[in-house]
Amino acid sequence: MIYTSESIQKAINSLSSLPTIGKKTAQRLVFFLLKQDKEYVSNFANSLVELKDKVNFCSKCFNFTEVDPCPICTSTKRDLSIICVVEEPNDVFAIEKTGDYRGLYHVLHGSINPLDGISAKDIKITELISRLTNIQEVILALNPSVEGEVTTQYLAKIIKPLSIKVTRIARGLPIGSNLEYVDEATISRAIDGRIEIL
Amino acid sequence: MIYTSESIQKAINSLSSLPTIGKKTAQRLVFFLLKQDKEYVSNFANSLVELKDKVNFCSKCFNFTEVDPCPICTSTKRDLSIICVVEEPNDVFAIEKTGDYRGLYHVLHGSINPLDGISAKDIKITELISRLTNIQEVILALNPSVEGEVTTQYLAKIIKPLSIKVTRIARGLPIGSNLEYVDEATISRAIDGRIEIL
Repeated sequence: MIYTSESIQKAINSLSSLPTIGKKTAQRLVFFLLKQDKEYVSNFANSLVELKDKVNFCSKCFNFTEVDPCPICTSTKRDLSIICVVEEPNDVFAIEKTGDYRGLYHVLHGSINPLDGISAKDIKITELISRLTNIQEVILALNPSVEGEVTTQYLAKIIKPLSIKVTRIARGLPIGSNLEYVDEATISRAIDGRIEIL
Repeated sequence: MIYTSESIQKAINSLSSLPTIGKKTAQRLVFFLLKQDKEYVSNFANSLVELKDKVNFCSKCFNFTEVDPCPICTSTKRDLSIICVVEEPNDVFAIEKTGDYRGLYHVLHGSINPLDGISAKDIKITELISRLTNIQEVILALNPSVEGEVTTQYLAKIIKPLSIKVTRIARGLPIGSNLEYVDEATISRAIDGRIEIL
């Protein structure tokens, strides 16, 4: 008998089923929770149940939202003629954090990955195409991976004929990096994507 | 507006209030939870509420338990004449994992720390002393810190006069370590605690 309580074992199993949390961290978290008052733990648990209860997908951009359509899709302060296409909802948050982009989004919920049997039909591409009326530019902001690349090429091929400007976000040296330590592929892309100094 | 949902923000705040979990990990966990089905999330939340509902302190050893006294205190297979004194409930689990120790435990819930204003009265020392009838040995297994040391000395001083054998767990080189890289204090202790090879 290692644990004197089944509830402790159960809570450790729950927490260690989360990504990035191992058995040891889960144990530490359980002991932390046991030391908090009842209200803290019930508020904690409620915030997760509420999350799942209230949050759904926006029927337009497929980002997570509590109201449908989501606040970004219905905002009057955003540029309705630009759509930025991303793979996952977290990517929207990553871009929103910069505060620089003021257009709309479209979340594909994945990328084309023939090896895993994920084709264009399995991600929200049809839904993207149906949104393209009155759109002037589609920015493809997919991950710099093979799958992201394949999806970018595929989308460019079907959107360009609709006479909409299709762009992709730049690949190059990350800010704060050092030319000496950056991998060759990134340097190649940075040279390919060079911009004239005016 | 960074997050399109208050519930997401709330769940991120909840998760990042846990030790070892920062904002970024919390965000990742929230997106993971949003991708799971409702049952998974409600089971997850329930396991934490249940943890807090069911688990209390054992009135004898002050370890966490669902039944009082705890299964270790009431076990018929354990040596009732030895008590191992530890600082926190996690220490009990750490020792139980070895499977080597078959005596009882006593959890102090802290150690004497004059700088933080924690004196002998603030931890479960009176409760320990009242348990010492029919006890032959008290093993002090406190942390190798200044506070653990002070508490060990304090306990030895008050328990020895009761003609009970008082021992402390050994300090020395951890298994798998390398003499070259171990700190001086540990090596000093290892030399002090040397054992004759018979």
